[in-house]
Amino acid sequence: MRRIVLIGTGNIARHLFNAIEAVNSFEIVQVAGRNNKALEYFQSRTRVTTDFDLLEDAEIYIMAVSDDSISGLGAILKYLDGLLVHTSGSVSLKELNDITRRGVFYPLQTFTKDIAIDFKEVPICIEAENENDYALLEMLGESLSEKVYRISSQERRQLHLSAVFVNNFVNHLYTIGHDICMEHGLSFDMLKPLIKETARKIEATAPFDAQTGPAKRQDNKTMELQMESLNKKAHRQIYSAISQSILSTYGEKL
Amino acid sequence: MRRIVLIGTGNIARHLFNAIEAVNSFEIVQVAGRNNKALEYFQSRTRVTTDFDLLEDAEIYIMAVSDDSISGLGAILKYLDGLLVHTSGSVSLKELNDITRRGVFYPLQTFTKDIAIDFKEVPICIEAENENDYALLEMLGESLSEKVYRISSQERRQLHLSAVFVNNFVNHLYTIGHDICMEHGLSFDMLKPLIKETARKIEATAPFDAQTGPAKRQDNKTMELQMESLNKKAHRQIYSAISQSILSTYGEKL
Repeated sequence: MRRIVLIGTGNIARHLFNAIEAVNSFEIVQVAGRNNKALEYFQSRTRVTTDFDLLEDAEIYIMAVSDDSISGLGAILKYLDGLLVHTSGSVSLKELNDITRRGVFYPLQTFTKDIAIDFKEVPICIEAENENDYALLEMLGESLSEKVYRISSQERRQLHLSAVFVNNFVNHLYTIGHDICMEHGLSFDMLKPLIKETARKIEATAPFDAQTGPAKRQDNKTMELQMESLNKKAHRQIYSAISQSILSTYGEKL
Repeated sequence: MRRIVLIGTGNIARHLFNAIEAVNSFEIVQVAGRNNKALEYFQSRTRVTTDFDLLEDAEIYIMAVSDDSISGLGAILKYLDGLLVHTSGSVSLKELNDITRRGVFYPLQTFTKDIAIDFKEVPICIEAENENDYALLEMLGESLSEKVYRISSQERRQLHLSAVFVNNFVNHLYTIGHDICMEHGLSFDMLKPLIKETARKIEATAPFDAQTGPAKRQDNKTMELQMESLNKKAHRQIYSAISQSILSTYGEKL
């Protein structure tokens, strides 16, 4: 069994821990984190520590920590011999300064505390500076998922930007839909089948071709009425920006 | 069997036709449309006509036509004795002028030509001016779906506005994610599990609580870098409008 030390105790750390625990070829020999309380989740199942100077020997050290901790924590961990990887979508490999063997192991998915994820379906984006390290990460990736990709720091940044649109921004549009429902005493549950189908549609149809709605059909009357009925300025600005973008996207191609 | 005449030949007409054909208590005795070619889809299964003066007797006439045809077509059809309903999310009941028995039968879902929909899960929003007509529409609704709601024109307009955000606008964000991937030679397939999970998450979690990302954690550095890497002005405007809205939504409550 290849030895892994996991650094971090948040959502990604928990999901990675559970996924790696379920495979035969790798084991997590230690979890390190600053927060004793957060380590409780792991301590019945492996060794834990709050002292980053006392990490055990391992082949891979996975830093599942927030973006702005990566560089500083990397500096603290440069004494280690193994391969040190972070799990961030937006942080470059280069931010692991002075680390001889460094890499990235980025699972492109949204992780929630108590919702199980089928890791087999999670795209894992891998980067390393030499082929031996790449092969090691690939072996780990393929033991967890059917979808392992070689992705450079530059590509990963673009993927992460796409993810901001299709995940973070989409979720905020759900929040606005929820707000409008609440404001008018309507159940948000009524929208759930539509939300599900909208996401399902792009499995088989390019989103460009799936577009419908007032802006797509240049229905100015409906757009004006809808703008007027939005009470929050922030919502009107979003309505306007997205409608303009739809108009120009399909106007160009008509 | 209660008799229905269906007016219109587009996506909603096709999906309604198939759903109603599958139940025992209602039958579509005729489909009417201006376009002979579009009527071909129906003509092996029921009678069809292009002449709106020759509609058969029926209890319900369902107008599954575009929003801006409703009022004009309603005027042509005022000679009919049955209950005349439209299927639009944004058009008021009142736009069926001079119709004695009028109503709305709005299935809140996105319909694509060749993708089957499980109608049992489609919320159906019903409105009518008298209780007998309401009861008739309710009977039809309940024979198709487990989710039938009494919704006023005013409420329906708000639901439709919510639907524009969670369906039309969300789909455009998918298109932008797709664009960014194409521009950098990345496969959009990599984002599909994320899109699916983002939609699935709100089954159990309120979207307000599911929010993550740079704007939510007030990560200005990442937001600036991402804005800079967007090549289209329309995409930058959307990035900015949604990020501002997220900042103000969570700023207020912190």
